[in-house]
Amino acid sequence: MIRQPEQQSGTTRPRIVIVGGGFAGLNVAKSLRNAPVSIVLIDRRNYHLFQPLLYQVATSELSPANIAAPIRKILRNQENAEVLLDEVTGIDFDQKQVKIEGGELAYDYLVVATGVRQSYFGHDEFQPYAPGLKSIDDALEIRRRLLLAFEEAEWEADEEARRAKLTFIIVGGGPTGVELAGAIMDLASNTLPKEFRNIDTKTARVILIEGSPQLVAAMPEDLRSSAQKVLESMGVEIRLQTRVTEVNDSGVIIGEEHLAAENVFWAAGVQGQAFAKTLGVETDRGGRIVVGPDMSIPDHPEVFVVGDAAHATDAATGNPVPGVAQGAIQTGRFVAEQIQRELKGGDAKDRPAFRYHDKGSMAMIGRGNAVAAIGKRHFGGFLGWLTWSLVHVFFLVGFGNKLLVMFDWFWNYIRHTRQVRLITGDPEVHLKHFRSSDTEVES
Amino acid sequence: MIRQPEQQSGTTRPRIVIVGGGFAGLNVAKSLRNAPVSIVLIDRRNYHLFQPLLYQVATSELSPANIAAPIRKILRNQENAEVLLDEVTGIDFDQKQVKIEGGELAYDYLVVATGVRQSYFGHDEFQPYAPGLKSIDDALEIRRRLLLAFEEAEWEADEEARRAKLTFIIVGGGPTGVELAGAIMDLASNTLPKEFRNIDTKTARVILIEGSPQLVAAMPEDLRSSAQKVLESMGVEIRLQTRVTEVNDSGVIIGEEHLAAENVFWAAGVQGQAFAKTLGVETDRGGRIVVGPDMSIPDHPEVFVVGDAAHATDAATGNPVPGVAQGAIQTGRFVAEQIQRELKGGDAKDRPAFRYHDKGSMAMIGRGNAVAAIGKRHFGGFLGWLTWSLVHVFFLVGFGNKLLVMFDWFWNYIRHTRQVRLITGDPEVHLKHFRSSDTEVES
Repeated sequence: MIRQPEQQSGTTRPRIVIVGGGFAGLNVAKSLRNAPVSIVLIDRRNYHLFQPLLYQVATSELSPANIAAPIRKILRNQENAEVLLDEVTGIDFDQKQVKIEGGELAYDYLVVATGVRQSYFGHDEFQPYAPGLKSIDDALEIRRRLLLAFEEAEWEADEEARRAKLTFIIVGGGPTGVELAGAIMDLASNTLPKEFRNIDTKTARVILIEGSPQLVAAMPEDLRSSAQKVLESMGVEIRLQTRVTEVNDSGVIIGEEHLAAENVFWAAGVQGQAFAKTLGVETDRGGRIVVGPDMSIPDHPEVFVVGDAAHATDAATGNPVPGVAQGAIQTGRFVAEQIQRELKGGDAKDRPAFRYHDKGSMAMIGRGNAVAAIGKRHFGGFLGWLTWSLVHVFFLVGFGNKLLVMFDWFWNYIRHTRQVRLITGDPEVHLKHFRSSDTEVES
Repeated sequence: MIRQPEQQSGTTRPRIVIVGGGFAGLNVAKSLRNAPVSIVLIDRRNYHLFQPLLYQVATSELSPANIAAPIRKILRNQENAEVLLDEVTGIDFDQKQVKIEGGELAYDYLVVATGVRQSYFGHDEFQPYAPGLKSIDDALEIRRRLLLAFEEAEWEADEEARRAKLTFIIVGGGPTGVELAGAIMDLASNTLPKEFRNIDTKTARVILIEGSPQLVAAMPEDLRSSAQKVLESMGVEIRLQTRVTEVNDSGVIIGEEHLAAENVFWAAGVQGQAFAKTLGVETDRGGRIVVGPDMSIPDHPEVFVVGDAAHATDAATGNPVPGVAQGAIQTGRFVAEQIQRELKGGDAKDRPAFRYHDKGSMAMIGRGNAVAAIGKRHFGGFLGWLTWSLVHVFFLVGFGNKLLVMFDWFWNYIRHTRQVRLITGDPEVHLKHFRSSDTEVES
């Protein structure tokens, strides 16, 4: 049976329950650090994940611990906050309670910050053949497949099977897809060649498939074409305005064409958590919870949704708030401000409408090469890479991590290496896959 | 179908097949770097593991990649060596072939370096309740249980259940058991206290159980008692001359006494791989393959067994060669020397008998405290810790790793922190465990 928070101390401070310890939820909690409240932050994992660098875990550049810090550690000095490792299974809006397996937790304010998961646009059957990249475990699975592909190709006697093992398809040309494609090409071209005796890892094909006419569509025009040029000069094959109609154990089908590939990775879209649909509140086509201008849900001013989990509108432009780190941070801080104002006697009816401040966007393309748009300034090439590195390190939570990550990047940059090339998990599973010389992929 | 090595090049250099990329196997390969041979090193994992530091992965001090380097990377510049990720399923001594799932590999010399696995002394039913520490995946499992225990205790309403969650039992008082006990106590006493609101992590009980009358029995007398004193001063409860008769979901039974504990870790013994028993060669009680003075098996001078996998005798003292890193390194180099001598025309009948050179032993006890015996010099306390740190970093494979590990140790030492506190794996598994408030342990 779960202990009720502060049941012994008997305080009567308003309780803020936050569900999710990503950028959004964590910023709500941290912004309330001096407020006379009792915060319970619930997450089903014990760590905050710096998602923008997840692709570097997937491609052997960083260890998971470099981009993940325990939520408890981040909030250790914030006396008014408690952390609960658990999963919320339901919400009783009338009783103002969240349900967890161990019992219930009453709230005065509830903040839903549960983020998004991969979307296969109605084709969940693609998932076993094309894993996505949303969690540490996803990243380790992609890393495992990536490294196994080269191990298998090295000893494959059949030419056609070897080609399929050395073909990597990334579906989705947003920042994650672009970064994955560049990093896989870098791995094959710069890190691995000397380590194999029977294959030339430089002959690996990396194919990036995007449905729209351009890569990284959210970026300014000049950086979009710059990203494309750099990737092409690295040898990445780019297929624009191309839709994937089928993914199976032999590869990908686009229109009439079959691309034989053993390694397909999915970076094409996201949707709200399944949990959101069970709440009886309005969700958009992508499963995000529709919120008002103040980030609360209809008829329940005490329930907010922040970050990627919300379908929110920027009051300044009328555009949707983008599903990026800045959107999560800003909506989180906004909601914390409203709660603080009302604790001091403010009325929920006087809440302002949320306005999004676009601080820019960026994407790493390859070794020492990135594109970055910050305000009206656009950076590419090495300068873009420096900008990208500084901004990402600056926002990494935890000082120890920052130094380690900088050290790793610096080391990898000068040595052309990648330190974290481990195939972990039960060997029985991956060797079984390895042993079958056909192109079957384990699910 | 597996490609035969060098089937295209058609060379006729003698082929050395090495099974296992630990200290022993890797030292055979590296010592043959200038020999006119064709080496195939087979391992079911793609990395060499620096096992002496595995307990630091289990206790959140280091990331897996800090102590594991791809075997390919280590051998990248050794042109005469190839690496094969696969598992050997049998050996045909008459045909001189090893069997792998993908086919067969012929050898001129075979070196078996398959190491050991955990032994429960005939009580394999203890395993689900008391995981051992032999692989990266073992270490991640122990880390998961360790961190979950505190997460669960923080919200446990029942006093007795909370005590069981905060009780950690380590079975086996060798170096691994001593190091685990010290590190868990350090985690509970120095790293975690500030992060929890409802439990005092310093009240965690760490109980170290050893069957013999002393800890770290292989070390000199003064260091044995020093290790015990330091652990006791840290608060570790030591039970000597104590045998565990039962381990189950409620804890451990020793004689008439039941110790209620949710967390039991096994560091009590090792045995040869199951594979060794299928070969039709003599094995000792611990499943190690019995070898002659030259490390070869009877009637097959072309088949050697090295490292922990071998039951070998030191020709100088008549004692068994100990199952430590130095034993593996030295037997590996010895065998490589014999092969080289015979390639130059030497006769296998003239092989000398292997002599073990004891270079000392050491064990980390706690924060800034270790015991080390090097030759006739004995070090304890901070000086022991410095010795321990320098020796371990010196032997870590891969320069990038060394700097990172030193950085981590230095950082953790001055900050009392541990960076790698991630509970990875499917949340559905660990939350299920968490939700049940009884002391059931998932298997």
